[in-house]
Amino acid sequence: MEISKIYLKYSVDSSISLLTTNGLFIGRFQPFHKGHLATIKFALGMVDQLVIVVGSAQKSHEPRNPFTAGERIRMIKESLDADGEADVRRILIIPVPDIDVHSLWTHQVDMLVPKYDVVFANDLFTLMLFREQGVKAIEAPLYRRDEMVATEIRKRMAAEENWEDLVPKPVSKVIKEINGIERVKAISQKIC
Amino acid sequence: MEISKIYLKYSVDSSISLLTTNGLFIGRFQPFHKGHLATIKFALGMVDQLVIVVGSAQKSHEPRNPFTAGERIRMIKESLDADGEADVRRILIIPVPDIDVHSLWTHQVDMLVPKYDVVFANDLFTLMLFREQGVKAIEAPLYRRDEMVATEIRKRMAAEENWEDLVPKPVSKVIKEINGIERVKAISQKIC
Amino acid sequence: MEISKIYLKYSVDSSISLLTTNGLFIGRFQPFHKGHLATIKFALGMVDQLVIVVGSAQKSHEPRNPFTAGERIRMIKESLDADGEADVRRILIIPVPDIDVHSLWTHQVDMLVPKYDVVFANDLFTLMLFREQGVKAIEAPLYRRDEMVATEIRKRMAAEENWEDLVPKPVSKVIKEINGIERVKAISQKIC
Amino acid sequence: MEISKIYLKYSVDSSISLLTTNGLFIGRFQPFHKGHLATIKFALGMVDQLVIVVGSAQKSHEPRNPFTAGERIRMIKESLDADGEADVRRILIIPVPDIDVHSLWTHQVDMLVPKYDVVFANDLFTLMLFREQGVKAIEAPLYRRDEMVATEIRKRMAAEENWEDLVPKPVSKVIKEINGIERVKAISQKIC
Amino acid sequence: MEISKIYLKYSVDSSISLLTTNGLFIGRFQPFHKGHLATIKFALGMVDQLVIVVGSAQKSHEPRNPFTAGERIRMIKESLDADGEADVRRILIIPVPDIDVHSLWTHQVDMLVPKYDVVFANDLFTLMLFREQGVKAIEAPLYRRDEMVATEIRKRMAAEENWEDLVPKPVSKVIKEINGIERVKAISQKIC
Amino acid sequence: MEISKIYLKYSVDSSISLLTTNGLFIGRFQPFHKGHLATIKFALGMVDQLVIVVGSAQKSHEPRNPFTAGERIRMIKESLDADGEADVRRILIIPVPDIDVHSLWTHQVDMLVPKYDVVFANDLFTLMLFREQGVKAIEAPLYRRDEMVATEIRKRMAAEENWEDLVPKPVSKVIKEINGIERVKAISQKIC
Repeated sequence: MEISKIYLKYSVDSSISLLTTNGLFIGRFQPFHKGHLATIKFALGMVDQLVIVVGSAQKSHEPRNPFTAGERIRMIKESLDADGEADVRRILIIPVPDIDVHSLWTHQVDMLVPKYDVVFANDLFTLMLFREQGVKAIEAPLYRRDEMVATEIRKRMAAEENWEDLVPKPVSKVIKEINGIERVKAISQKIC
Repeated sequence: MEISKIYLKYSVDSSISLLTTNGLFIGRFQPFHKGHLATIKFALGMVDQLVIVVGSAQKSHEPRNPFTAGERIRMIKESLDADGEADVRRILIIPVPDIDVHSLWTHQVDMLVPKYDVVFANDLFTLMLFREQGVKAIEAPLYRRDEMVATEIRKRMAAEENWEDLVPKPVSKVIKEINGIERVKAISQKIC
Repeated sequence: MEISKIYLKYSVDSSISLLTTNGLFIGRFQPFHKGHLATIKFALGMVDQLVIVVGSAQKSHEPRNPFTAGERIRMIKESLDADGEADVRRILIIPVPDIDVHSLWTHQVDMLVPKYDVVFANDLFTLMLFREQGVKAIEAPLYRRDEMVATEIRKRMAAEENWEDLVPKPVSKVIKEINGIERVKAISQKIC
Repeated sequence: MEISKIYLKYSVDSSISLLTTNGLFIGRFQPFHKGHLATIKFALGMVDQLVIVVGSAQKSHEPRNPFTAGERIRMIKESLDADGEADVRRILIIPVPDIDVHSLWTHQVDMLVPKYDVVFANDLFTLMLFREQGVKAIEAPLYRRDEMVATEIRKRMAAEENWEDLVPKPVSKVIKEINGIERVKAISQKIC
Repeated sequence: MEISKIYLKYSVDSSISLLTTNGLFIGRFQPFHKGHLATIKFALGMVDQLVIVVGSAQKSHEPRNPFTAGERIRMIKESLDADGEADVRRILIIPVPDIDVHSLWTHQVDMLVPKYDVVFANDLFTLMLFREQGVKAIEAPLYRRDEMVATEIRKRMAAEENWEDLVPKPVSKVIKEINGIERVKAISQKIC
Repeated sequence: MEISKIYLKYSVDSSISLLTTNGLFIGRFQPFHKGHLATIKFALGMVDQLVIVVGSAQKSHEPRNPFTAGERIRMIKESLDADGEADVRRILIIPVPDIDVHSLWTHQVDMLVPKYDVVFANDLFTLMLFREQGVKAIEAPLYRRDEMVATEIRKRMAAEENWEDLVPKPVSKVIKEINGIERVKAISQKIC
């Protein structure tokens, strides 16, 4: 996968003492999958510090958002630790709850994360909101694939099909430990 | 300071591959000071992974809470990076907004952080709330000193007295960069 | 209907002085119908005190939730009083508003009702949420029928078909008194 | 105590079949005490059905509001059951959370309780809010004494002085069971 | 268009010194179009002062609600100023955020606007809510057409078809100035 | 009073056709008094359009905020109409509810009002919040006097002393009509 290669080129000689650019990578991570991990490595090649914003942090136990923010942060942290390649010292993981008022959302992000220079995201809506504020917002390489992959994973979990190949090993460990598959099944039957 | 010594004793041969215990260190960090840094080192000596919970995350620009969560997270992260002693790979920094309903607050924390085994905190109220839930909650060594120190710092900032000795260097750098002293002065004159 | 018979068997010699088990019966009661009444009698046969939790208490005037909590409580109380069979001294009726954050919902219930030993509910989602908290949760005998019946009643009201046979007499009296049928019609035309 | 006498005079020949007037008795019940019990009997002498509104239902674990709504409802219900004199079949106990917007509060009450004809309350503010809406609002006989008594009870609990004489027996049983005295002490030391 | 004619008949000799009737005209104005302008003139012919209630004031950046309240107020004010016919001295423009609790919504309106005698609205639901409160509520002449027109305009904007003929000139000027067409396109692609 | 004189100098030949600068005048107006009216005239001399922001719009029925936003808007509009000097065609009156999160407050204002170039306010805190956002914020001439005057008026109302000289005539008419004096007295006795 070329993304990791791009990453390697950039990151090899990065040095904490020179840190100057900060980036946000915004996603919901329901669940965290291999595409997300590649994006993190890609972004770490372009910025000195990366904040992984775990969006819709207040949501869980619903079809599109089965896992709590705490569970998702655990998936991300354990995947990064196990992977070993991404430098976790240059990463922060920050949960950000939705705010019903769309025009306040970027300001809610600003309140909860350290100042930043650039935003990486996978969906047009997030990109537009930041660009309206004059912020540099970059379509992550997996543009529009992220949601498709996560949706596919949740669908396979409910259908008892193979989904584990799509996520880092620690993610499937966490999901099993919290009985996540049963949860996904139960909520997939919820009407509304 | 003996706290750092205790810390050293515990942490020297800790190894990520054996990580099993997780702790929370709960505070408001208005601002982050040297006592907090010592507590983090102390806690890292007792747990494998430590989540620094930045409480009252939605608050800022008021006398007891001048700084935003993002600004506080930056203070903490830059202090840890500069200090070099605490292993940032074993640390997560998670902002947690207040919830008006006290009986739901520990559950809000549970939602936003990975599962944990023990809580470190400086105030009796936080300790009581977790203990009512059956959670092991430890009075941090600076018990009851934290709030006093932070209050003193804010008072000195408003009065233009020396406060910088009480905080790690990166904290005073961040505060100056955001015109924090002017902000503290302006809100100290607010009636309500 | 055998449910009432089961109930009779249990309740005949119940005595307040021996009260020890408490149960919750959770529903939305839009509107309260004969199936709910039978479930209450069934549950009263198994527990000493029963709390009828009127869920989505803040909702009204919308297609799936036409009636206010106050109106629903009135329907329940007047039906129990008229029925005479269920011992109202062993019943509490408590409205519980939704909380947007699913992972906090059972804790919101805990805050608003006396402690309990068992939960009766009609939908899988509610059952799952309580079971994740380690609570004994029983599918009410009318499992999955409740929502169907209530939906049918609302549909018939909008279509001016016979719905009164499906509810206790006091319910239809209350609905007429508050012009409920007009309301159901008006909101059934609302787009969203 | 003459209040009980007044009550007896009114209630002896009340009959459920003639129920027509409904009243609200609004309080915070932190904790429920003997004055509240007398007021309930007084009000039951004047109305056919009485809704005991447990106000500030979302509050607990703070100096003026140590107990959750669920705990307070349990105190009330067990006291009424033990007392035997007040007819619990004519009583509903409904928790009502505060709404920050004062001008909406009576409407929030209206949403959560069955329709009513008269309000009993102990404080001028509640009385004024209902009267502005054109509702008949009666100062309960213990006018302005309620808050004083409850404050006194909480003060004695924190100071380990005798408070049990001021509450019905089941209240002190509940408070002990939930470690209420420890809780009151811990929160009495909270600064803000 | 006869609506303007009706208006003219009524308004010619209206005089501020005799103001006695107040009306509300409730809409979302996403965006403000010529039908709205005609309705305002119609209503001004029947009342002395008219409050234009900009509903769903907290919403923006979503398919059915692309524009912020501030942007919509600007559209309305600049259209009235440019039109010259409607007497802006007799008009107030008040944004009213939604309240999730439908049974409190008319009370939220009451809190935010001066007292009024009559409500003009385009949708059955709004009319029903006010009528349940005993308020005189009039179907605006464009009954049910408003939403259709606004939906059509948003559709045309996303499809780059002609929409400018349907709105007053200042509206299209404001929309262009805020890059509104790009915004409508971006959110029309949002899944949920 | 020289403020009116300053105003006259600026406003005499202002012309709507040249409108280009927009200003906000931010206050709570509890109640609207003569100092506010003078400030409006002063501001109208400096900007082409003025938005009067009625802050803390959700508050009422409490000591510092006795009147609802609707009541305050009525006071302002009727005072402007009666005064005749200030050009109401160049004025908008917009209620803005508080948002608990201080760092989001200016953004909430931005959402609810048309774009603006300058802010007039009477308190340091408001001025600081806008200046942190890079907005030009001007201390209104009555700097720090506003709150003092309003406090004095409320005090006199509660004490039945002369307060009517401090407000425009229509304000005292409105207050009497809504039984405002009784309300102020009742809430002045509220403990918390």
